[in-house]
Amino acid sequence: MKADIAEQPEVFARLLDERADQIAAAGARIAEWRPRSVVFTARGTSDHAALYAAYLTEIRLGIPAGLASPSAMTVYGARPDLRDTLVVGVSQSGGSPDLHEVLRVAREQGAHTLAVTNNPSSALAEVAELHVDVAAGHEIAVAATKTYTAELLALLMLVESVKGGGTLPAGNLAELRRLPGHAERVLADDTAVDLAARYRFADRLVTTGRGYAYPTAREAALKLMETSYVAGLAFSGADLLHGPLAMAQPDVPVLAVVGSGPAGTSMRDVVTRLGERRADVVVVGPSDVDGAKARIATPDVDERYAPLLDILPLQRLALALALHRGENPDAPRGLKKVTATL
Amino acid sequence: MKADIAEQPEVFARLLDERADQIAAAGARIAEWRPRSVVFTARGTSDHAALYAAYLTEIRLGIPAGLASPSAMTVYGARPDLRDTLVVGVSQSGGSPDLHEVLRVAREQGAHTLAVTNNPSSALAEVAELHVDVAAGHEIAVAATKTYTAELLALLMLVESVKGGGTLPAGNLAELRRLPGHAERVLADDTAVDLAARYRFADRLVTTGRGYAYPTAREAALKLMETSYVAGLAFSGADLLHGPLAMAQPDVPVLAVVGSGPAGTSMRDVVTRLGERRADVVVVGPSDVDGAKARIATPDVDERYAPLLDILPLQRLALALALHRGENPDAPRGLKKVTATL
Repeated sequence: MKADIAEQPEVFARLLDERADQIAAAGARIAEWRPRSVVFTARGTSDHAALYAAYLTEIRLGIPAGLASPSAMTVYGARPDLRDTLVVGVSQSGGSPDLHEVLRVAREQGAHTLAVTNNPSSALAEVAELHVDVAAGHEIAVAATKTYTAELLALLMLVESVKGGGTLPAGNLAELRRLPGHAERVLADDTAVDLAARYRFADRLVTTGRGYAYPTAREAALKLMETSYVAGLAFSGADLLHGPLAMAQPDVPVLAVVGSGPAGTSMRDVVTRLGERRADVVVVGPSDVDGAKARIATPDVDERYAPLLDILPLQRLALALALHRGENPDAPRGLKKVTATL
Repeated sequence: MKADIAEQPEVFARLLDERADQIAAAGARIAEWRPRSVVFTARGTSDHAALYAAYLTEIRLGIPAGLASPSAMTVYGARPDLRDTLVVGVSQSGGSPDLHEVLRVAREQGAHTLAVTNNPSSALAEVAELHVDVAAGHEIAVAATKTYTAELLALLMLVESVKGGGTLPAGNLAELRRLPGHAERVLADDTAVDLAARYRFADRLVTTGRGYAYPTAREAALKLMETSYVAGLAFSGADLLHGPLAMAQPDVPVLAVVGSGPAGTSMRDVVTRLGERRADVVVVGPSDVDGAKARIATPDVDERYAPLLDILPLQRLALALALHRGENPDAPRGLKKVTATL
């Protein structure tokens, strides 16, 4: 897991250097199709990449986007009319039978289909009209890290290419080319690893973020659960202020992702309220926030780029916490057996 | 909260007796509009009702449906093209400013809009083209119970009315008229209340379900968090087998909603696997399941009706657990203050 995490700057650079043309070509096809709506389907970590892509699609392309529950089609046999719709399956392995079935049915129902995977010869890649290879290389650990951020970057490049009418605009590419360097600097900072010790005896951790940062909160919670068996509870900042704030007792640690854009501005208020309730808030982001006890610094970039960077220290935190607890993050309890019998 | 919970059979009966015509009329308008897709927007408990309605829309009507993140529009200013789209805001109070903003922008962007609320004079009801009043009466407790199931039933009646071309088919209405009696019998069974004692010292509870039962799992987890401060972790049965199964230690209690239809069939396998890992699984559903330690019995109905009944014992469980822990479920910590200052 440590090796996978460390590889991410290199994975970003490779995607940008070697795959920009292929992704732009896929973007050109989608721009031609002019979908009226985009439906994403994914599971686990890839579901968080899909959520990020749904925000990008709505905000950058002005196309309504959402996440579909595979079970409507696969369990109940729903056959929605999907003409003018693009259905996108996101899966690291490309091997999930239910996503394959969703894309197969979607084509029958008139949709255009795209698979985003780390395995170009997977069943998912083959059933889809179009495939984007996130080219992250073989992932060693069970807990996905580099395939997650590779999915994020590939989806970002794709959306920007669609917006550019089939080319990734030069200005855009120049901005994206800063990401590998940013990622390297973020990974060189050990604040998150040092913070892990204080969560040694935590039963639960609340993660929160809004907008583009909400997928980061969800993915951080899942990573903590998969490796450290802590109860990771992810909430959008807006939802947290509704009911679950009741949970923010003084001994509940909160990891809040607070960017420098409009979602970050609204999150600052959430952090202050949590602080008033004496919650133990650690912020991930480019600037200090009133009410927070500590901060894991990440670069001041546009909020749509931040998810590729903010998750990096949180992956390291999950790994360090697992080691503090005497767990083996490369062999999470129970997971191997299930994979074998499924 | 106890009074609100007990009122649900009556709320069901009232909706069916007094509101069927109004809801059918709303269904007639939607049937005329022939939306190409439906986007739901909601927060907290109402988000779970919206998720249920998204399944109904895809499965019963064959129209693609999904949940939108308000922040894309309200925080980032996304202006998606929403012609041929129906945007539905679901909110008990109808007072949430961000949902109001989503519906306002959606109309500008060409969408048809519908508000489903318990307050016909709310801002949300007024900004939408069409309003469905769930007529649950004043809800006393902060934790929503009867407004949740009223939203479920109103949305179910609406979808069946759209399917019926603007009338709720007589056969359908006859089936729905059994729900108040079913609800009364479910509420007369104290199994869930008796089970609460065994969760007295639980730090976390995992809830799980698939398809129509997944919103039930999510809502049960939220209710447990709001009233008892237990960490409630909801997973779809399919996702649980991916990563988070690692969390199912012998001392983690699992509440699994297992219906008698296709999603229930696939959930039986999940329960058996959890049992093999010595998880403490309690099933909610009409029949016993291998691997479960106990069962809260609910009627054997079509899976699309089950969410209106399966949540009832789980609401009672959340209430009983709060009382066991010496909490006051009618005044959850922190919530009142936040409501006052927001």
